[in-house]
Amino acid sequence: MSKYWSDMVKRTDPYKPGEQLNNPRIIKLNTNENPYEPSPSVKKAIVDEMDSRLQLYPSPTADGLRSTIAGALNVSMEEVFVGNGSDEVLAFSFMAFFQPGKTIRFPSITYSFYPVYSKLFAIPYEQVALNDDFTIDGEALFGSEGGVILPNPNAPTSIYEDLSSIERIIENNPDTVVIIDEAYIDFAGPSAVELIHKYDNLLVIQTTSKSRSLAGMRVGYAIGNRNLIEALTRIKDSFNSYTVDRLAMVAAKAAFEDKAHLQETVGKIKATRDWTVHELEQLRFDVLPSSANFLFATHQSVKAVDLYDYLKKEGILVRHFNSPRIDNYLRISIGTDEQMRVLVEKIGKYV
Amino acid sequence: MSKYWSDMVKRTDPYKPGEQLNNPRIIKLNTNENPYEPSPSVKKAIVDEMDSRLQLYPSPTADGLRSTIAGALNVSMEEVFVGNGSDEVLAFSFMAFFQPGKTIRFPSITYSFYPVYSKLFAIPYEQVALNDDFTIDGEALFGSEGGVILPNPNAPTSIYEDLSSIERIIENNPDTVVIIDEAYIDFAGPSAVELIHKYDNLLVIQTTSKSRSLAGMRVGYAIGNRNLIEALTRIKDSFNSYTVDRLAMVAAKAAFEDKAHLQETVGKIKATRDWTVHELEQLRFDVLPSSANFLFATHQSVKAVDLYDYLKKEGILVRHFNSPRIDNYLRISIGTDEQMRVLVEKIGKYV
Repeated sequence: MSKYWSDMVKRTDPYKPGEQLNNPRIIKLNTNENPYEPSPSVKKAIVDEMDSRLQLYPSPTADGLRSTIAGALNVSMEEVFVGNGSDEVLAFSFMAFFQPGKTIRFPSITYSFYPVYSKLFAIPYEQVALNDDFTIDGEALFGSEGGVILPNPNAPTSIYEDLSSIERIIENNPDTVVIIDEAYIDFAGPSAVELIHKYDNLLVIQTTSKSRSLAGMRVGYAIGNRNLIEALTRIKDSFNSYTVDRLAMVAAKAAFEDKAHLQETVGKIKATRDWTVHELEQLRFDVLPSSANFLFATHQSVKAVDLYDYLKKEGILVRHFNSPRIDNYLRISIGTDEQMRVLVEKIGKYV
Repeated sequence: MSKYWSDMVKRTDPYKPGEQLNNPRIIKLNTNENPYEPSPSVKKAIVDEMDSRLQLYPSPTADGLRSTIAGALNVSMEEVFVGNGSDEVLAFSFMAFFQPGKTIRFPSITYSFYPVYSKLFAIPYEQVALNDDFTIDGEALFGSEGGVILPNPNAPTSIYEDLSSIERIIENNPDTVVIIDEAYIDFAGPSAVELIHKYDNLLVIQTTSKSRSLAGMRVGYAIGNRNLIEALTRIKDSFNSYTVDRLAMVAAKAAFEDKAHLQETVGKIKATRDWTVHELEQLRFDVLPSSANFLFATHQSVKAVDLYDYLKKEGILVRHFNSPRIDNYLRISIGTDEQMRVLVEKIGKYV
């Protein structure tokens, strides 16, 4: 604390990302990264772009990338906004659609960055309890004063809500923006993107960090009615004209263009997920039904925190949240078959 | 405008960056980019990093890059903050050190993003008139209520204020933060970085976009007392955990490590600058004394806006600001010798 800090700094309660250790021998199952490399065409695109003009600013409007994303998602370029990871897109969205004095709502167990943004921008919030089975209580999100945000699939629960439940939340908040944060959608069911032409209060946020293996490059995006996209653009252009650099831009574009690679890696991760769930259940874990690239699991007798410590000592990083109702769960990212085999073997020895 | 826009969006007045045209035949002298490529070691670093793990998040603390910058500037790593271009670092600084209800001050002719940030974050501001010779009136910046920000060299005037004038501004604002925005410092004189151990209210912001030829990669940084750096880190960690991607991080590190390349390109640009000033003066321009990689010039009889239009038609982009006192000036970035020769020749034909 210092006398030079603004009130805004003083009220922050910063997010703590999962540990990023540089030791390549560690099996890293703690930040829901993709264990597979991005499409080979990503590297080619980076090398081509690098050979031209790194000394020139990137396109401030990112038209090339936006039009590729628009094509892939069957929307128009004016319905797409891109930013420096979906975290930045989320931050801009809190600025653009939520505000002090109007209480927003989100689930009590959810992405832990939402309360962080709320505190930063002094936006009051209500956290709505999940049902006993950890699904989202949609009706509790109806008629919000200031807006609604929820991930689908939810994190860290990994549970996907079907599109009809999502649609009921959107239509029951006609006067405020509903943000569906779809970081993990490619591992789950249909996206809410198909609803954007029906609801002008719907903003869908996705990322290239998970299914497209580009966490290292920081490219997220939002899809919605062009009035919402214009609001995000106004915020961005009042904050930082160029948030996506030249190499990130071409990397994301190439990743979007290689649909076969996406299908292949998503398919592999889902198969590994099914295998891992089966093995963990054999070892007396209860595993929530996952539609993401991670599992949320609790053991019937061993404490989650003890398991977390044991795995860390054995060179496997998973994530533990010390929060009500979930403090006896572990969030385990899906790695390669070999990584998950080691995980299951180590856990088998311990429990 | 839409009923879904927050008050924050409604009060924005977005920045308009210089045009980014993709036509490589255009001579682009409008956004103060470096005409030379970055150090060859930048490309090597990018290729090495790309071959490892683009699917993993970057380091949220950017320790490697911060320690390289700290070493180069003779400060400690805890006195360095890095971000997605100096524009993002400036935005975070407005959030961290300035606030609603406390009027900040900056020069009336300066980087046009400052009023944009002020409007976004509802920070009241006073613009202090420059002296008749376009130098900064330092005393008018003494004793601010909410803080001070100024570029040195100033933009678009290109004029450098010596360090003793800067120091007087800092010591005459003991209760608020003074931000010195040194985007162009490598083309000028001594940096205020050497004062950070003397003044805990001083924040210096620099960029790799100009002298280090990395505009396309978006890496800016701030240097100051560790309490100020902690405030910036708290804002970043409440906004976006990873703002500098893996390739941008290694590119900036490599650029910092190649001091010879920096000296060589800065030397070339200064020589070209001197030649261009001389030629423009022969053509009856008044050119402000430049310590940057651009010139600010007015012709004794031809109108700036006419010259701007003519040059654009001839395939040369420069920048014209339609603002009081400077609407008869052009801001001209320093390109290669050949580009400046073409510029001088075209202007010679017109005037």
